Amino acid sequence: MDPIFVYDTTLRDGTQGENVTFTADEKLKIAKRLDDMGIAYIEGGWPGSNPKDMRFFELARKERFKTARITAFGATRRPGISAAEDVNLAAILDSGVSTAAIFGKSWSLHVTGIMGLPLSENLSMIHDSVAFLKANGKEVVYDAEHFFDGFKEDPDYAVQTLKAAFDAGADFLVLCDTNGGTLPHEMQILIPSIRDIMEAHAAGKRPLKLGIHSHNDCGMAEANAITAVNCGAVMVQGTINGYGERCGNADLTTVIPVLCEKMHRPCIPAEKLRCLKNLSRFVSETANIVPLNVRPFVGRSAFSHKGGIHVSAVMKEPRAYEHMDPEKVGNRRRVLMSDMAGKSNVEYKAREMGVDLCAGGCDSKTIVSRIKRMEEEGYQFDVADGSFKILLEKFTDQFTSLFDLDSFRVTIEKDGDTPCSAHATIKISVGGTHEITAAEGMGPVSALDNALRKALGNFYPDLDSMHLVDFKVRVVDGREGTAAKVRVFIESRDSDEVWTTVGVSEDIIEASWQALTDSFQFKLAKEAAKKAQAAIAAGVSYNPPEGVACRV
Amino acid sequence: MDPIFVYDTTLRDGTQGENVTFTADEKLKIAKRLDDMGIAYIEGGWPGSNPKDMRFFELARKERFKTARITAFGATRRPGISAAEDVNLAAILDSGVSTAAIFGKSWSLHVTGIMGLPLSENLSMIHDSVAFLKANGKEVVYDAEHFFDGFKEDPDYAVQTLKAAFDAGADFLVLCDTNGGTLPHEMQILIPSIRDIMEAHAAGKRPLKLGIHSHNDCGMAEANAITAVNCGAVMVQGTINGYGERCGNADLTTVIPVLCEKMHRPCIPAEKLRCLKNLSRFVSETANIVPLNVRPFVGRSAFSHKGGIHVSAVMKEPRAYEHMDPEKVGNRRRVLMSDMAGKSNVEYKAREMGVDLCAGGCDSKTIVSRIKRMEEEGYQFDVADGSFKILLEKFTDQFTSLFDLDSFRVTIEKDGDTPCSAHATIKISVGGTHEITAAEGMGPVSALDNALRKALGNFYPDLDSMHLVDFKVRVVDGREGTAAKVRVFIESRDSDEVWTTVGVSEDIIEASWQALTDSFQFKLAKEAAKKAQAAIAAGVSYNPPEGVACRV
Repeated sequence: MDPIFVYDTTLRDGTQGENVTFTADEKLKIAKRLDDMGIAYIEGGWPGSNPKDMRFFELARKERFKTARITAFGATRRPGISAAEDVNLAAILDSGVSTAAIFGKSWSLHVTGIMGLPLSENLSMIHDSVAFLKANGKEVVYDAEHFFDGFKEDPDYAVQTLKAAFDAGADFLVLCDTNGGTLPHEMQILIPSIRDIMEAHAAGKRPLKLGIHSHNDCGMAEANAITAVNCGAVMVQGTINGYGERCGNADLTTVIPVLCEKMHRPCIPAEKLRCLKNLSRFVSETANIVPLNVRPFVGRSAFSHKGGIHVSAVMKEPRAYEHMDPEKVGNRRRVLMSDMAGKSNVEYKAREMGVDLCAGGCDSKTIVSRIKRMEEEGYQFDVADGSFKILLEKFTDQFTSLFDLDSFRVTIEKDGDTPCSAHATIKISVGGTHEITAAEGMGPVSALDNALRKALGNFYPDLDSMHLVDFKVRVVDGREGTAAKVRVFIESRDSDEVWTTVGVSEDIIEASWQALTDSFQFKLAKEAAKKAQAAIAAGVSYNPPEGVACRV
Repeated sequence: MDPIFVYDTTLRDGTQGENVTFTADEKLKIAKRLDDMGIAYIEGGWPGSNPKDMRFFELARKERFKTARITAFGATRRPGISAAEDVNLAAILDSGVSTAAIFGKSWSLHVTGIMGLPLSENLSMIHDSVAFLKANGKEVVYDAEHFFDGFKEDPDYAVQTLKAAFDAGADFLVLCDTNGGTLPHEMQILIPSIRDIMEAHAAGKRPLKLGIHSHNDCGMAEANAITAVNCGAVMVQGTINGYGERCGNADLTTVIPVLCEKMHRPCIPAEKLRCLKNLSRFVSETANIVPLNVRPFVGRSAFSHKGGIHVSAVMKEPRAYEHMDPEKVGNRRRVLMSDMAGKSNVEYKAREMGVDLCAGGCDSKTIVSRIKRMEEEGYQFDVADGSFKILLEKFTDQFTSLFDLDSFRVTIEKDGDTPCSAHATIKISVGGTHEITAAEGMGPVSALDNALRKALGNFYPDLDSMHLVDFKVRVVDGREGTAAKVRVFIESRDSDEVWTTVGVSEDIIEASWQALTDSFQFKLAKEAAKKAQAAIAAGVSYNPPEGVACRV
């Protein structure tokens, strides 16, 4: 079977997405990662349209790419001039790429209705532009914009545009579902008939190479991409994480593993597939867009199990609830805690966290029912791994508190239109020694966090590396007849880990305090364990802070 | 053509999604919205698996649903007992629904490999359970779990399981792609052959009704759902926003408009389609999950245009870059980085709220750009109608403050393990008269609410009927280089209305105060207008509280 060429347009069409922007340097970094991945084509930008894109091509020219071909994008020549006079086409040549991608109109509505041109002039624009680029030694990818909409309305004209590009020497003819309104079963009828017409036209000249460029407006971008491959397309255009205008482009982090693993149509070197999750994460981090947990194959939840039945079955036989081995795409299995969780979830999770469930003489069934009761009250442990670890330790008598609260007081003041101010005083004790201190903050939780951090700093110097990164609050309804409760999640991180803790109360500050105190306990226990291990490794005895019986 | 039944499982399979949990009350609210939308079936939960689900059914029994049938989910009977002895099946009967959905095993791997049962016992479990529910007068939806995986490995056995369910009287046979590993072109081959076999089996008995339940692990959940409909399935199972285990279920906010608008297979009443965006938003808000901007049809970016070429073309001819009219699904076109976008929207909204935009000599373009600036800072007005009205009044010099804050102070104290206590002192002025008072509360916002209410009560006796019903907090990223901001929504109601207000600040109390103060201003203005109207109707003059120039 024909090899499949993956054509990435994250750097061009991807940046049409809302909130997606990259600097020229960032584009270069992404291009290097795409090249590492074995992607065949990387569309770097539209050099004629903005200076940032031109700068990218300048940078890219100095780099050495292993296998990827960098391509520059542009439109067919403007009406009424020759291709040689067109500044846009000149910019493509200036960009120094060996492959050019140009788009032309396939839909008579655009030609006559919007651009106000004769249909014949559009055909000349396509032909001239492709011929000009070929004459200048470029490989040419021709993007037939709105091909499917055009073909549905005026099939004859749409086909003429493809023939114009082919006759001028285009290497790939890419059928674009620009508006994303076409469905897979339509593709399955349309593409073979287009292929038949075009193969008859190409016969005796050179082989026909069709491509697909799909958008996600009907949630069908990836289905359309693989349908087109099934119908003979050999180039798939898309973006990492599906970034792109409106609902986005075909997501290559889905299309690539489907082609490689499910359809046995390799499109990147086999050993590269396991870098997919990291590539996805790298691009979302560079774009500063929160990664989508539910993203197929590469998302954090893609191989997560919540239901108790599912977890126990997956333990016996992964195929039971996993359509593939997560490690093939660099991802991993996760077991979530929830009110649907059974015994096996708790046991799996406890093992993962290094907590011995048998230690406290408490069976895991009792623990599960205690967890369920807490979840009834509004706690949620599927993301709050930090609090969950502490809870399991408490249930099994393995928890050692690394500090205790004596008391705190938080005051928030506001005068007229001036902004609020908040300060907190806190008194804690560590191994019998008391410490009282005060701090300010942006709001009460921040003041409390600052005060606690300051007080603990006298005992534990390791806290500098720890930061609160997120704070989420929602009202959860309590049992009937009681007041509404508030659930607070706090996400914290240090240099090597991210952990989440949870608190629930009718009082937002009480709930925040629970989550905050768990977060600090988690961090301190982690540091203590690390120190003890280092001490054991070094063969010296480890002394925890005075009075603290530190379990390791 | 056969009608299509939409079967929503947001409340059951949806809650298998990471971070997706609903209380019984929230489930009921969602069920009512689904019923309003004309969804045929609403799966409410698994009454045998947890107490929360059982409570939902208790609540649902007291409600009247217009057209939707509430269904309860469960497994086939346990091995080795009779269906009548099975507590799970008994729980389904206890739930009081008229339709039951039960799942059984289709894949021999699960039967022999995981459950360790003879293949024949599984067939009996399916037959007995369906027959038992039918004998108890239930409509039965049979979910054939892992059907496609089972059929690929042992087609004969998989078909036997369907026959067992059909012969026992199952009304629908739903083919489940439980692991989400099946591709549309596989469905297109498998479903017709299964249908042929089952139709031959059903001939002369009763009509065969097939359904589809798809998961998104390969990004194909929606494509598979519509492919199955093309192959003769008459029931589509899915969830709002595609919430569900791992990568989620088929997203009904995509499947419904594709069926109705693209495939002309109506599945909800035609006039309901324009409620789709609001339904999507309601479910994400209830789950407190950030709505996905790029979600097809209903996402904020679904009809957004960024590229200059696209924008000008769309102005001339919407079809140029829009596959459908966004208003059909209750969405709207957005033009990014251009003030053209919101003007008509603001004008529409202002008309709706009875605010005269021309009053303050401020043109609506200026107002739009001021609103956009606030939205950049994290405000969100599409749900906060209360704050939006006040904002429009302020921008057009039509706002009259019905009270002013002099100052407040909130103190939260905690001693050791006792719960927090919060109290607030507040000083306000109404028409030049000052009032200072104090109150306690469950947390700082509640204390502030109580204190403000008490202080205002001296001037306005109508406040008793007003209650805070919800309080939602989310961290939103501010502009580059500034600290993270917090957005607070407060939902309030009185006997005849519900309104939402919003506040944004780096300090949660400041943000809460903004939302709180808007909520009270909204209520007081409403009461003043009502009294003035009543006075006019009665032909007497109306005297607002001393010193307050009340605009009506």
